[in-house]
Amino acid sequence: MTLEEYQKQVDNWAQTLEKPYWSPLSQMARLIEEVGELARIYNHKYGDKVKKPSESPDDIEDEMGDILFDLMCMANVEGVSLSKAMNKVINKSLTRDKDRFKKKTKD
Amino acid sequence: MTLEEYQKQVDNWAQTLEKPYWSPLSQMARLIEEVGELARIYNHKYGDKVKKPSESPDDIEDEMGDILFDLMCMANVEGVSLSKAMNKVINKSLTRDKDRFKKKTKD
Amino acid sequence: MTLEEYQKQVDNWAQTLEKPYWSPLSQMARLIEEVGELARIYNHKYGDKVKKPSESPDDIEDEMGDILFDLMCMANVEGVSLSKAMNKVINKSLTRDKDRFKKKTKD
Amino acid sequence: MTLEEYQKQVDNWAQTLEKPYWSPLSQMARLIEEVGELARIYNHKYGDKVKKPSESPDDIEDEMGDILFDLMCMANVEGVSLSKAMNKVINKSLTRDKDRFKKKTKD
Repeated sequence: MTLEEYQKQVDNWAQTLEKPYWSPLSQMARLIEEVGELARIYNHKYGDKVKKPSESPDDIEDEMGDILFDLMCMANVEGVSLSKAMNKVINKSLTRDKDRFKKKTKD
Repeated sequence: MTLEEYQKQVDNWAQTLEKPYWSPLSQMARLIEEVGELARIYNHKYGDKVKKPSESPDDIEDEMGDILFDLMCMANVEGVSLSKAMNKVINKSLTRDKDRFKKKTKD
Repeated sequence: MTLEEYQKQVDNWAQTLEKPYWSPLSQMARLIEEVGELARIYNHKYGDKVKKPSESPDDIEDEMGDILFDLMCMANVEGVSLSKAMNKVINKSLTRDKDRFKKKTKD
Repeated sequence: MTLEEYQKQVDNWAQTLEKPYWSPLSQMARLIEEVGELARIYNHKYGDKVKKPSESPDDIEDEMGDILFDLMCMANVEGVSLSKAMNKVINKSLTRDKDRFKKKTKD
């Protein structure tokens, strides 16, 4: 499914609700909450945090899905095409930043 | 372009670099940085923050693109399919949470 | 207790541990996790998020304490005096930004 | 200066403004913005991010001061005593979590 189709599918779901989208600052707070949950899992997996035995198994995939879902809701409210946004950032990586990171060298 | 194709395109670009991806905790710090930049714009647009005259015009689309790009880099390192993640969260919205938000009522 | 005394008390506790402080990027990930938890509570209290019945009562005081504790750990690792940092930001508010926010007018 | 005195000093300054404090969700968005700026500096110092030549010298002390200032503003709005909050978290570290982290052993 394309990014546009995902955004549309999220909107189709949202439009079934009495209040389709939260206010922008509520959406932002939720995004922070979801990013914080991913940070917790990263700290368990890659950082110095030790799991408490009571913690349930973490699922990076689920947290990333939640972040992407939030971002799509925010994009829908703003009228932003994430597809267009991605094309811009990929293009920027390939051009503007092309000398910013060290490239592999041919042997 | 599908989500898989975007992730692949990001990986194609990353693989041209000497160090294709940052360490996971560096990626996390960058994600927070990008979310913070979007928060700043939201505060200008929807919150109580007043722009300083020296600030350049904000671009929500660009910041959302940066966040999505970071998320794709993180997903590539983790071997996560964002497409699969999105399908799960959409399915969860349609089922598990189906009674959590008030639906529109037919007239 | 002064800010310096709090930082010292946190350090006294940390120095009893085999590894007194986490790595800086782990500390950063924990900070965003704690900020995310406060964001969740703010969304319940001020935003559009509806509590699930299973959620325990939230405690803004506790979350703020966790954030401040993390910040003190980070400051200790960096050798930063939060007291000096606060004095600078208060001074900045009173001088540099003095014309940035609208003052109350006398009647 | 004690934490209470700092909170009071921040409030004294805020009360000179026409609108002393931002709305809670605006404050939250600003907190994440400041945390994001600290994350950027941490990534330069400890992570994989390379500074662009145009970037100004970073100042961890200033960013930590901004975060603490924001937190004091939020605490003032909520009527939270950060001093009481710190005492609780320090007490929690010394008691509840006392077996969670490995202690130094005597030789």
